[in-house]
Amino acid sequence: MTHANTRPLVAVDWGTTSLRAALLQAGQVVAERESAQGILAVPAGGFPQVLQALCSDWLALPQALCLISGMAGSAQGWALAPYCPCPAGFADIAQHLHWLEPDRMALVPGLSCEHAHAPDVMRGEEVQIMGALALSGRNSARMVLPGTHSKWAQVHNGQVTSFQTFMTGEVFAALRHHTILARTLPEATMATELDTTAFTQAVAQSLQAGNLLHQVFGTRTLSLMHRASPQALLSHLSGLLIGEELRAQAFEKDEEIFIVGSPALQQRYQLALAVCQVQSRCWGAQATWHGLQAIASSLT
Amino acid sequence: MTHANTRPLVAVDWGTTSLRAALLQAGQVVAERESAQGILAVPAGGFPQVLQALCSDWLALPQALCLISGMAGSAQGWALAPYCPCPAGFADIAQHLHWLEPDRMALVPGLSCEHAHAPDVMRGEEVQIMGALALSGRNSARMVLPGTHSKWAQVHNGQVTSFQTFMTGEVFAALRHHTILARTLPEATMATELDTTAFTQAVAQSLQAGNLLHQVFGTRTLSLMHRASPQALLSHLSGLLIGEELRAQAFEKDEEIFIVGSPALQQRYQLALAVCQVQSRCWGAQATWHGLQAIASSLT
Repeated sequence: MTHANTRPLVAVDWGTTSLRAALLQAGQVVAERESAQGILAVPAGGFPQVLQALCSDWLALPQALCLISGMAGSAQGWALAPYCPCPAGFADIAQHLHWLEPDRMALVPGLSCEHAHAPDVMRGEEVQIMGALALSGRNSARMVLPGTHSKWAQVHNGQVTSFQTFMTGEVFAALRHHTILARTLPEATMATELDTTAFTQAVAQSLQAGNLLHQVFGTRTLSLMHRASPQALLSHLSGLLIGEELRAQAFEKDEEIFIVGSPALQQRYQLALAVCQVQSRCWGAQATWHGLQAIASSLT
Repeated sequence: MTHANTRPLVAVDWGTTSLRAALLQAGQVVAERESAQGILAVPAGGFPQVLQALCSDWLALPQALCLISGMAGSAQGWALAPYCPCPAGFADIAQHLHWLEPDRMALVPGLSCEHAHAPDVMRGEEVQIMGALALSGRNSARMVLPGTHSKWAQVHNGQVTSFQTFMTGEVFAALRHHTILARTLPEATMATELDTTAFTQAVAQSLQAGNLLHQVFGTRTLSLMHRASPQALLSHLSGLLIGEELRAQAFEKDEEIFIVGSPALQQRYQLALAVCQVQSRCWGAQATWHGLQAIASSLT
């Protein structure tokens, strides 16, 4: 009998605008590749060819297992892998895999959970959560996965028990580019460096005052009255939004939050959590590969 | 000596995208006109000609006084009429008029006030506030002027003592057109009728739950799970945002809020205030003309 964690793993993270893949041997990442062919750039029925073009050699390895997470498992992707309801852990996700080729290639399902007013969903982040858990050696943690849609997830005994989505990144972009605030903010987002003072002051302001629809207008008036530079205002706006996201969290004493995301977002959330006097620990892109490996390992 | 309120008044409301004018005789509106030539459509130096083209006959009346409110008094307009600081009433605004022709034609200044974190400004709404006050016969009131940028103003003894701007309308448009929510919401905004049940439920949800960046994502997931129609979801999103705006207000028992705005927005804010068990009273476009008349009458 072959144990899954001894098989080569072709780990694939296939999102809306990018495709990344890694080869893991005995649980270690030995190579990584990427392409710009996110699911929006793949014609109908073209998913197998695109994947083969990126890593046919890896897929041809004896006993190779391929696990694909992200939007490739959505209705707009390769095939629909229905959401796995919370609470869900490694084994539940493994059980809900959508097999494209039996025991060879599968789509990882996203997770869903129910709130009072509406359901919530994630697709791709569940793998990062599992990876951060595996890398940390812990089986309980509270995590934030910042981004276009930030996810806050609670993990108990290896299971995601609940999570909440915040449209923080997307609202930031919409305010910055598609409202009156665009007139006074600098053009490029990512090229501009964070003004940490303006950012942390805005986080504190947002935590204290709430009232987001009013506070963001200050980004306009501070500029109108020449009281802040465009550079500082961009950091100010980011701080207001991330502060509003943190305001929705109830932190426990001595709690340590896991931040899983890009270095730039890790920095912002670490600074913002420090304003709340909350410790944090960061995990990067490797969390995805180790999450897929952990799911592979739970297949027997 | 001529009393201002016996002179013919050419009242002009010159905004970013529209130009409206009214002729008042002895304090009564006798005619109205409008054009699409908002300040963005007027070439540099072209303001006098555009105004003459719309109402040269009115301006030629003996002893005619012309008062112009709105963005025409901004740096991008005819000339800059600097903000008049709060507290400010009829007489303060009259004193801060920016005269284009002595005793003949003036720009009405906007108002400014200071909050803990940033200044706040309005330009044009101050005239509507003064008009609603004049029409109501009261000298104290709390008012909301809903729109792209909603204004909440407190008036005591005929003076605007403070106000707050909420980017409610603009954030609604940005979310609806420039985020993932656009994928499942109907195309046209104004053509769609309000689903009052979905709207008031969302107002109540927002008032209770707060947490706007999370709640708006429900507009996506309710659609994804086929639990609401696109039509209901648009009203739902509107209710979430207006609820968040009302959540920032502390209402007193038996308080009556003045709503000054278009009939469509009057309806939404009346419904939303009713969810808060707050009475309201509505004022429409006429408030602008009567506000300019009230300012004219305070010139001696």
